[in-house]
Amino acid sequence: MTRFEPRDPDFEAKVRSRFSRQTALHTLGTVLGLVEPGEVEIEMPYQADLTQECGVVHSGIVTSILDSACGYAAFTLSSVGTTISTVEYKVNFVGPARGDRFLARGEVVRSGATVTVCKGNVLAYDGGEEKLVATMLITLMSMPN
Amino acid sequence: MTRFEPRDPDFEAKVRSRFSRQTALHTLGTVLGLVEPGEVEIEMPYQADLTQECGVVHSGIVTSILDSACGYAAFTLSSVGTTISTVEYKVNFVGPARGDRFLARGEVVRSGATVTVCKGNVLAYDGGEEKLVATMLITLMSMPN
Amino acid sequence: MTRFEPRDPDFEAKVRSRFSRQTALHTLGTVLGLVEPGEVEIEMPYQADLTQECGVVHSGIVTSILDSACGYAAFTLSSVGTTISTVEYKVNFVGPARGDRFLARGEVVRSGATVTVCKGNVLAYDGGEEKLVATMLITLMSMPN
Amino acid sequence: MTRFEPRDPDFEAKVRSRFSRQTALHTLGTVLGLVEPGEVEIEMPYQADLTQECGVVHSGIVTSILDSACGYAAFTLSSVGTTISTVEYKVNFVGPARGDRFLARGEVVRSGATVTVCKGNVLAYDGGEEKLVATMLITLMSMPN
Repeated sequence: MTRFEPRDPDFEAKVRSRFSRQTALHTLGTVLGLVEPGEVEIEMPYQADLTQECGVVHSGIVTSILDSACGYAAFTLSSVGTTISTVEYKVNFVGPARGDRFLARGEVVRSGATVTVCKGNVLAYDGGEEKLVATMLITLMSMPN
Repeated sequence: MTRFEPRDPDFEAKVRSRFSRQTALHTLGTVLGLVEPGEVEIEMPYQADLTQECGVVHSGIVTSILDSACGYAAFTLSSVGTTISTVEYKVNFVGPARGDRFLARGEVVRSGATVTVCKGNVLAYDGGEEKLVATMLITLMSMPN
Repeated sequence: MTRFEPRDPDFEAKVRSRFSRQTALHTLGTVLGLVEPGEVEIEMPYQADLTQECGVVHSGIVTSILDSACGYAAFTLSSVGTTISTVEYKVNFVGPARGDRFLARGEVVRSGATVTVCKGNVLAYDGGEEKLVATMLITLMSMPN
Repeated sequence: MTRFEPRDPDFEAKVRSRFSRQTALHTLGTVLGLVEPGEVEIEMPYQADLTQECGVVHSGIVTSILDSACGYAAFTLSSVGTTISTVEYKVNFVGPARGDRFLARGEVVRSGATVTVCKGNVLAYDGGEEKLVATMLITLMSMPN
């Protein structure tokens, strides 16, 4: 992974404060984990009311935590006084979202003045096993707060 | 829009029955609307606990209903004894998900023996106004039940 | 299709002049067709040296003309003194690129101050028949010339 | 990178033979480099007749070599008697395609019985410098020959 230099020294506090006000992510039961320059992790426990069928979490919910992990990864590198919004993303689903808990990791690929590109994965933990569930490529834009 | 011939005459009952067992979509408060060969609509009311900030619904939630509308659109054309699973999708977010209610419409672009490609839009209704929120291109695969 | 108001009255001359200096598109034997506000068409005859196997044009070449048609569609709506560059795209290939000639049509979905989203299709003409080859969703950015 | 076990011991000969019959890739002046289980590299020298403007190679041409590197990466893991075709891909362009030569590297993310997902990058070499030009996520399907 490329090393990134944060433009805002308070990047971690900024990300954690924003996360704490993110209603939808609380509704999904997520917890913010690692927050490094250009990298963020979000965890979600299994919740029966977010499944599509047979104990598999809905792909849109998987996308929600992955989208968020990538968005916050971009946000770690944004300048003071700017915010980040999602322009578009694409996700491949490579295995069933079955497990006790899920980890979404977002990483910045390229951080530009306006456009940031990130990639990310969701891993499922089922008993002791770790499995790849989904992989994302996402474009974000920075704009004044 | 291309006209499609359903491979299963009971396509509507099949879709409505599957939808009724979709836990995550109930959690999101969605309602199944139009079910035609190759086209499905899903509605979702505004819910404060699904917002990211400032009354805007989280983009992952917008994706969830769009993904589902497209998946069911593909399912209307699937053969008896087969099911549909999402291989991948891509979404562009073109306007804020702000409104009293949201309509996701999925349409089949091409229905093959194995692979189905759909496109879809999410519209927001804010007072009397209709606005485009997101547009999707999605690949699905049919497999034995 | 939404009607668009061009920001630059000389949009057609601007697009045709830019196209005439596009070396790669000449190498591919393309011809610029319709140029309307928010919509552009590019044609390409079959060329044996652009095939992958068995008379089917390489998917990257199909993407090249589709990418270009969408890029010029975005360019028809750009302000005086700005240019358009491709941020990202996604393409589904829904039928073999087999035919005497191919038509790429790009259309603007949303034209913003910075970001433009387009969609587009490539059609193959084989004898009298018209068939859908590929469908694209693309994000472009406008920047000072 | 995950280690992959080829299903066909003659995977390298198979890939090199298929590449040698790929007309479009010869037209683009490409050379096949590394061929390992789940990983393939393709090189392309700068060619003035493939540029869009100002010495920058057309994004569709960049996509062509990336698409091919990923397709052959998937093909290294395919069973005897099967071929691989591109279902869809998405590409982010993160830097100008400017350089003396370009390297496309494709890697398998997941190799299934029917569906294979790959990722890939194009790097530009400009003098001594290496720069990331584009990154791809691609879905391929295996089918009987």
